[in-house]
Amino acid sequence: MTASAHTRVVIIGAGFGGLEAARALAKAPVEVTIIDRQNHQCFQPLLYQVATAVISPADIAWPIRGILRRQQNARVVMGTVIGIDETARVVHADDIDLPYDYLVLSTGVTHSYFGHPDWEESAPGLKTLTDAIEVRRRILLAFEHAETAEKEKDRRRLLTFVIVGGGPTGVEMAGAIAEIARQTLRFDFRRIDPRSSRIVLIEAGPRILPTFSEKLSAYAKRSLERMGVEVMTGAMVTACHRDGVSLGEKRIDSESIVWAAGVVASPAAQWIEAERDRAGRIKVGPDLSVPGHPEIFAVGDTAAPLTPVPGIAPAAKQMGRYVGQLIRARVEGSPALEPFVYRHAGDLATIGRKSAVVKLRRIELTGFIGWLFWSVAHIYFLIGIRNRFVVAITWLWSYLTYQRGARLIT
Amino acid sequence: MTASAHTRVVIIGAGFGGLEAARALAKAPVEVTIIDRQNHQCFQPLLYQVATAVISPADIAWPIRGILRRQQNARVVMGTVIGIDETARVVHADDIDLPYDYLVLSTGVTHSYFGHPDWEESAPGLKTLTDAIEVRRRILLAFEHAETAEKEKDRRRLLTFVIVGGGPTGVEMAGAIAEIARQTLRFDFRRIDPRSSRIVLIEAGPRILPTFSEKLSAYAKRSLERMGVEVMTGAMVTACHRDGVSLGEKRIDSESIVWAAGVVASPAAQWIEAERDRAGRIKVGPDLSVPGHPEIFAVGDTAAPLTPVPGIAPAAKQMGRYVGQLIRARVEGSPALEPFVYRHAGDLATIGRKSAVVKLRRIELTGFIGWLFWSVAHIYFLIGIRNRFVVAITWLWSYLTYQRGARLIT
Repeated sequence: MTASAHTRVVIIGAGFGGLEAARALAKAPVEVTIIDRQNHQCFQPLLYQVATAVISPADIAWPIRGILRRQQNARVVMGTVIGIDETARVVHADDIDLPYDYLVLSTGVTHSYFGHPDWEESAPGLKTLTDAIEVRRRILLAFEHAETAEKEKDRRRLLTFVIVGGGPTGVEMAGAIAEIARQTLRFDFRRIDPRSSRIVLIEAGPRILPTFSEKLSAYAKRSLERMGVEVMTGAMVTACHRDGVSLGEKRIDSESIVWAAGVVASPAAQWIEAERDRAGRIKVGPDLSVPGHPEIFAVGDTAAPLTPVPGIAPAAKQMGRYVGQLIRARVEGSPALEPFVYRHAGDLATIGRKSAVVKLRRIELTGFIGWLFWSVAHIYFLIGIRNRFVVAITWLWSYLTYQRGARLIT
Repeated sequence: MTASAHTRVVIIGAGFGGLEAARALAKAPVEVTIIDRQNHQCFQPLLYQVATAVISPADIAWPIRGILRRQQNARVVMGTVIGIDETARVVHADDIDLPYDYLVLSTGVTHSYFGHPDWEESAPGLKTLTDAIEVRRRILLAFEHAETAEKEKDRRRLLTFVIVGGGPTGVEMAGAIAEIARQTLRFDFRRIDPRSSRIVLIEAGPRILPTFSEKLSAYAKRSLERMGVEVMTGAMVTACHRDGVSLGEKRIDSESIVWAAGVVASPAAQWIEAERDRAGRIKVGPDLSVPGHPEIFAVGDTAAPLTPVPGIAPAAKQMGRYVGQLIRARVEGSPALEPFVYRHAGDLATIGRKSAVVKLRRIELTGFIGWLFWSVAHIYFLIGIRNRFVVAITWLWSYLTYQRGARLIT
């Protein structure tokens, strides 16, 4: 295999979209280089379970090299991209330069604090394994510190948990923290009663889970309230502090604040000259290419197609696969592909034990059936036999014992 | 239950010895407080498997509160001890003061660099989960950096792994790194061949595994060599640097050095006025109490009994149980216990796939049988059903696929 004979495809970011693009090129006569800052891909839909001590980071992560080990035309580079030279067609990374003929941008999102980046320290979000380990540490430490606190006021603050944002991640976090407080830790302390914890879910819009139907939204609210979560809708967080959040005049004292409110595209769009939407995503054409650059594509949360697409894993995968197939067709001289069309399979969010909401094309599921559907779907989409086995066993064990297997403060 | 009516027992350190002492007091009319810097107990015999990416930290750790949740007379405090007032009988911790009638010291060991604490940064040891995660990070990063290195010299240095110390931990680490290089990563890189890695095990004494028989020791050496490990005996490390180790005039270039050579007792002995041996352990009497202080006991690696006891988990457990029973007998006014006698069950060390050495009282096992015995014994001694299941499945999966489930660089 002579290197020079091949078309070079560089993919920045090994998330759902980037990896799917690489795989779609497995049989194409190209040389694929995928570069990521991490050595692993992380299954973000289950990050909240790492943050709430159910499963271990490695259970939802997989080495990128391991995923592509048998794909001979793919090479993995662990490194950080610094910039892109669109004229010379080179990606500059910290240790290495990567020339390309085709470029795929799939760098995902990061949290958005609506112009208040200083809130991040008080209210970490959930986008990476490091984030999830930090949130887990804060939640578990809050109970530890409450146990030794001398003053009732401190104990109250330490036992108050605030989740900002009522989308699936916020709902899942609120439900999971309620379970930790009411069930998992029930017998573990001698001076405090973890069941007296206050868990507040704050949503700025009129209802939680706004992408679901009103019926499912109302069901989720009732379920959370039955678990002891205070659901505040139409409430806008105006500041996050080290020891609480402000909602206009009102204030909630808490040292455990989780941010699940907003995201913004990572800076891929700034590396190239491209028009962006308000969330920082690159406005792409019908074939997901960047206007004026038929050789550069954006997929997943990095892309804003003409018809809006939700920021979820299946959407990123569909875009990645499409771009991989399109590049292959071009290189092989096959007929051009139809424009990209997103097919929405459904929305899922779990609330807690035996409780989830599922919206598929024609059916809506709730309660135990919804929860079972959610569990099976998530195990199915995990990468690797071992992870599926371990997560399934861990969920069964947690379900039977009300315990959590990863209560580590590190 | 009125607090004042009870005898107060404070246990410092929730390792094998401390926890066993707490459990032995479950039915005694005492109030037990166990204080530890961590919220979890870690199963140290399998730390090397975390360091070599087989299992996750949470698989070998268990929250101390979880272990003692049903023991109503036990209270767990997460905190750091600052000092002990032997006259007032109070343990001072960062957030809290703990008065005691009986005190158990079980603070374990830390690495000893033979008077060169500055070596630690270049050559981390393996005593805590944080250590293991750091070693794992260094090993995995070495391969990543070798893949992008431009110079052959850098590649060679990055693909050289040095383990200092030929006891069980050193042997296990060397075997595991050899497996990572020769099998796990075999197909994962495009520019380097991980199989060309050099793995060196350095032992100052005349043979590795000195606590085993000469026969087993020779078997372990042959097995390691067959796996491609260079075993250097009678070789003394005279310095550890960021980029290599010195053995007198000789030098081995490496950025991945693991310290498994020496340990020293943690500073418990310095908190009280007590005579110590060379390894910093408190010289205790026949009942494991500190001379002149019948109310203070030392167990596990913190204690140096009259008859030497090895620094292994079963020894710490036996001492902890003995002290718990002794305190109970005293509080209940039962007859005094016989002096402590250690019963040695055996020594185990695994070398790699299908290879381990086991020395029991009358039998010695090697090869596949030894490996099976080692595996079953370690799963049996893990705490928690979930951990046993998950570790067993992970081992089976690793055995069948040659893969490792926790290849995370965080």
